[in-house]
Amino acid sequence: MTLCRGAEAHEGVEKGKYTKGLGQNNMAFVGDREDIVSISLTATQNFLEKYNIDPASIGHLEVGTETIIDKAKSVKSYLIELFARAGNFDVEGVDCVNACYGGTAALLNAVAWVESRAWDGRLALVVAADIAVYARGNARPTGGCGAVVMLVGPQAALVMEPGLRGTHVEHAYDFYKPEHTKEYPTVDGKLSIQCYLKAVDHCYDVYARKFSQAHGGARFSLSHVDFAVFHSPYNGLVQKALARLVLNDFLVAPETPGYESVQVYKNVEREETYFHKNLETAFRKLSEPVYATKTKPTTLLPTELGNVYCGSLYAGLLSLVHTQGDALLGKRVLLFSYGSGMVSTLFSFKVARSVRDMQIKADLTRRLSQRRFVDPKDFHASLALREERFCAHSWKPQDPKSDLFPGTFYLKAVDDQYRRTYKRSPPPPPAAKL
Amino acid sequence: MTLCRGAEAHEGVEKGKYTKGLGQNNMAFVGDREDIVSISLTATQNFLEKYNIDPASIGHLEVGTETIIDKAKSVKSYLIELFARAGNFDVEGVDCVNACYGGTAALLNAVAWVESRAWDGRLALVVAADIAVYARGNARPTGGCGAVVMLVGPQAALVMEPGLRGTHVEHAYDFYKPEHTKEYPTVDGKLSIQCYLKAVDHCYDVYARKFSQAHGGARFSLSHVDFAVFHSPYNGLVQKALARLVLNDFLVAPETPGYESVQVYKNVEREETYFHKNLETAFRKLSEPVYATKTKPTTLLPTELGNVYCGSLYAGLLSLVHTQGDALLGKRVLLFSYGSGMVSTLFSFKVARSVRDMQIKADLTRRLSQRRFVDPKDFHASLALREERFCAHSWKPQDPKSDLFPGTFYLKAVDDQYRRTYKRSPPPPPAAKL
Repeated sequence: MTLCRGAEAHEGVEKGKYTKGLGQNNMAFVGDREDIVSISLTATQNFLEKYNIDPASIGHLEVGTETIIDKAKSVKSYLIELFARAGNFDVEGVDCVNACYGGTAALLNAVAWVESRAWDGRLALVVAADIAVYARGNARPTGGCGAVVMLVGPQAALVMEPGLRGTHVEHAYDFYKPEHTKEYPTVDGKLSIQCYLKAVDHCYDVYARKFSQAHGGARFSLSHVDFAVFHSPYNGLVQKALARLVLNDFLVAPETPGYESVQVYKNVEREETYFHKNLETAFRKLSEPVYATKTKPTTLLPTELGNVYCGSLYAGLLSLVHTQGDALLGKRVLLFSYGSGMVSTLFSFKVARSVRDMQIKADLTRRLSQRRFVDPKDFHASLALREERFCAHSWKPQDPKSDLFPGTFYLKAVDDQYRRTYKRSPPPPPAAKL
Repeated sequence: MTLCRGAEAHEGVEKGKYTKGLGQNNMAFVGDREDIVSISLTATQNFLEKYNIDPASIGHLEVGTETIIDKAKSVKSYLIELFARAGNFDVEGVDCVNACYGGTAALLNAVAWVESRAWDGRLALVVAADIAVYARGNARPTGGCGAVVMLVGPQAALVMEPGLRGTHVEHAYDFYKPEHTKEYPTVDGKLSIQCYLKAVDHCYDVYARKFSQAHGGARFSLSHVDFAVFHSPYNGLVQKALARLVLNDFLVAPETPGYESVQVYKNVEREETYFHKNLETAFRKLSEPVYATKTKPTTLLPTELGNVYCGSLYAGLLSLVHTQGDALLGKRVLLFSYGSGMVSTLFSFKVARSVRDMQIKADLTRRLSQRRFVDPKDFHASLALREERFCAHSWKPQDPKSDLFPGTFYLKAVDDQYRRTYKRSPPPPPAAKL
C-alpha cells in the first residue's frame, strides 16, 4: 500500500512541504495484516522464485532490521522455514541490529563469510527490511516500508572493493527506540542531521585515506566515482549529503578548477558548518550537476517508498540498476550507509558483470505502477490500528487480504502466547519469457 | 552480586531442587545500578586494561546480546566511547540478536572478518553479555548475569577449526520475548528442552559429516574430542546434552565396545527419545566418566553465575582455561552454542598456544571469592525494582554504588528522554607482577 495524493492539504501544511521540502513523492506502509516477519518472508520467497534459487544452496542468511517485535527471537528464525522445506537446516547467521545500519552489517558479514575459511561453497542471503513509522506530527511523512534481498557469492555482478571502506562510529542519541510500548522512535531532529552529515565527513576521511593507499597515493575525489548512493531518510538529506562530499573534495584541494564560486569557504572548520545556510546553499548549487548524474539515478525507490531504514541504501542501489542497466558495467558505485546511535560506512562496488537480469526481474516500473493509493486519513487510521496491535496478544488482523499482491505472506493471527502464524497469498504465475 | 544460601528453603521447594535438580550453585544478578550497557562497558574496559590493549588496535567490535533496552540503538554504540577516547572511530560491527546465540554469531562474524579481504590488520573484539531474569516461579532460579569479552586475531591461543562446524536452525517458539513491557521471557519449558536436545542431535550430524570430510573419511566420535563445552541454561541440561552426544556416538556405531549396557536402544528414533526417562538414565550413567573428564571442567562459571545467555558458552570455555591451564595445549575443545527460536552450532577449537596468561588474568578463584551473598528476599526485591524501572524514564538508580567492584561502570541516571548516562567506580590498581 502506498500513501500520497493530497497529503499536504490533509495535514494542513504548506503545499510542497513533503514533495519539494523533503523531496519525497510517495510513501509505502502496511496495516495490521503485515509485519516485519511477513514482509521479509515475502521478499525472500519471491527472490528465491524469481531467480530460481535452490533453498539448499544457501549456507548463510542474515537479516538487518530495527523493527523489533520480539526481544529475543530473530526474524531470521522465521525465514528459515523457507529453507527447511528444502531440507536445509544448516544456515548460519542471525539478525544485525543498529538502527538503519543493520542491513549493511549483515551484508559485510555475509561477504566476509564468503571470503573466510568457513565458507563451504554455498551462497549467502542478506535481507534488509524495516517498517518505518512515526508518531503523528512532522516526522510521520518521513516513514516508509520495504524489504531488500541480496545474494552474496562469487561471480557477483556488483563486486565490493576490498579494503575500500571508511567507517565512523560514535555514541549519540540522535534517533533511538527506548519506548517499549511504542513502535515509534524518539528523535532529536537537529542532532540527527548533524550526526548524519558528520558521519559523511568522517567516513570520507577514512575512505579517502584507504583509497589513496590502494591507488599509489592518488588523491580521492568524486571524480573517481561514477555513482553515489546514500541512506535516504528523505531525499532532501541525500542532496545535502552529496553536497557534503563535494565540500570535502573542495576542502582537500580548494585550488582545483571549478571551485571558484566557493573560495570564501576554504578555511571553514567542518564541525561548524552542519547548519551553515549560506555554505549549504553554495555547495548545493555547486553539486547540482554531480547530483543529477551521479545520485539522482539512485533515488527512485527511496522517494517512492519512503525511508526503508535498513533497506534504504539498497533500495537506492536497486534504483540505480533499474535506471542504468548495463550502462553500469565497469563503473564504481559509492555507497554511504548510516545507522543512528551511530554507525556509518562509506564503501564502494565495481560493476563487474551484467546487471540486466536484475534489472528485468526487479521490474520496478510495473511494480510501482501497481500500487494502490489511499487517502491520508486511511493511512492515519492504519497507523492507529498498528498502535493498538503493537504489544497485544490474541488478535487477528482486520485488514483485507484482497489488497495483497500475489505471493505476499501475511499474518494470520497472534495467539494468547503471542505466537504469530503466517500464510501466503497465491503466488504470481511464473514470469513470461522476455 | 550473587544469590544463594537458603534459596530452596526461602522458596519453599524441596531441598536440593536447585543444587541437585538444576545442578546450580549460585546465581549472579544486578539491581537497578547496572544494565546491559554498563556490564558490557565494565567487561570491555577491564579487558583492555588487563591485557594492555591499545583501543586504536581494534578494527571490529560486535556484541551478542538478547537484553534489549532499546529497539534501535545498539549496545555496541555505547561501547565505542571506550575507543573514541583513543581517537578510534573506525570500528565496524553492530549487535547480533538471536536469543542466547548472539555471542556465537558475533564470534563467527569476527573470525570471518579477520579471514576476509576486508581485514585491515587490526584485531576484533567480541562481547557476549546478558542479564537473564525470569518472572517469579520455577524458572527464576535459572537466571543469571555476565559479560564475556573475546579478542580475535592471528596467533590466537584458541584456534577455530575451519570448516568444522555444524549448524541447525529451525523456527520454534520455545523461548522468546514478545512482551514489550517486561524484561522476562515467555518460555515453553518442555519445548525448550526438546529443541535444545534436537539441536544437539542435528548439529552432531552436520559436524560429524564435516569432520569426516576433513579427516579422510574418519568417523567422528567424542573420542576425538578432549573437552566439550555447552551453552548452559542450567547444569542439568548440560549433563543431558553430553549424554545426548554419547547417544549419537552410539547410534552411529552401536557395536563399539563399551556400549554393552545400552544395546536395547540401538534402533530408537532420536525424535522419540527427548523425554525417554529410561534411555536418559542409561546414557546419563554411561556418559558419567566422559562428563567428569571432558565437561565438568567447563562448568565452574555457569554453575556459579547462572545462565549468562549469550555469554554462557564462553563462560564455560573460560572455566576450562581456568581449570586446565596449559594442560590444554594441543587439545580439541568442542563447543555447542544454542539460541532459542532457534539457531545452534557445534564447532571446535584447537589449543595452539599457551593460555596461561588468560588463566592468570581471569583470576576466577579470587574473583568468585569476592562476591557478596544476599538473602533471597533481597534478590526478589531487586528484581521487583528492575520491573519498575524497565520501561521508565526520568529516574536515578537507588542501589548503592558502594557495592560495586572497583572499575565497574554503573548507571548514573535515565533522563526524561530515556537517555542513559554512565560513570565508572575507581578502577583497580594495576595487577601486581606474578
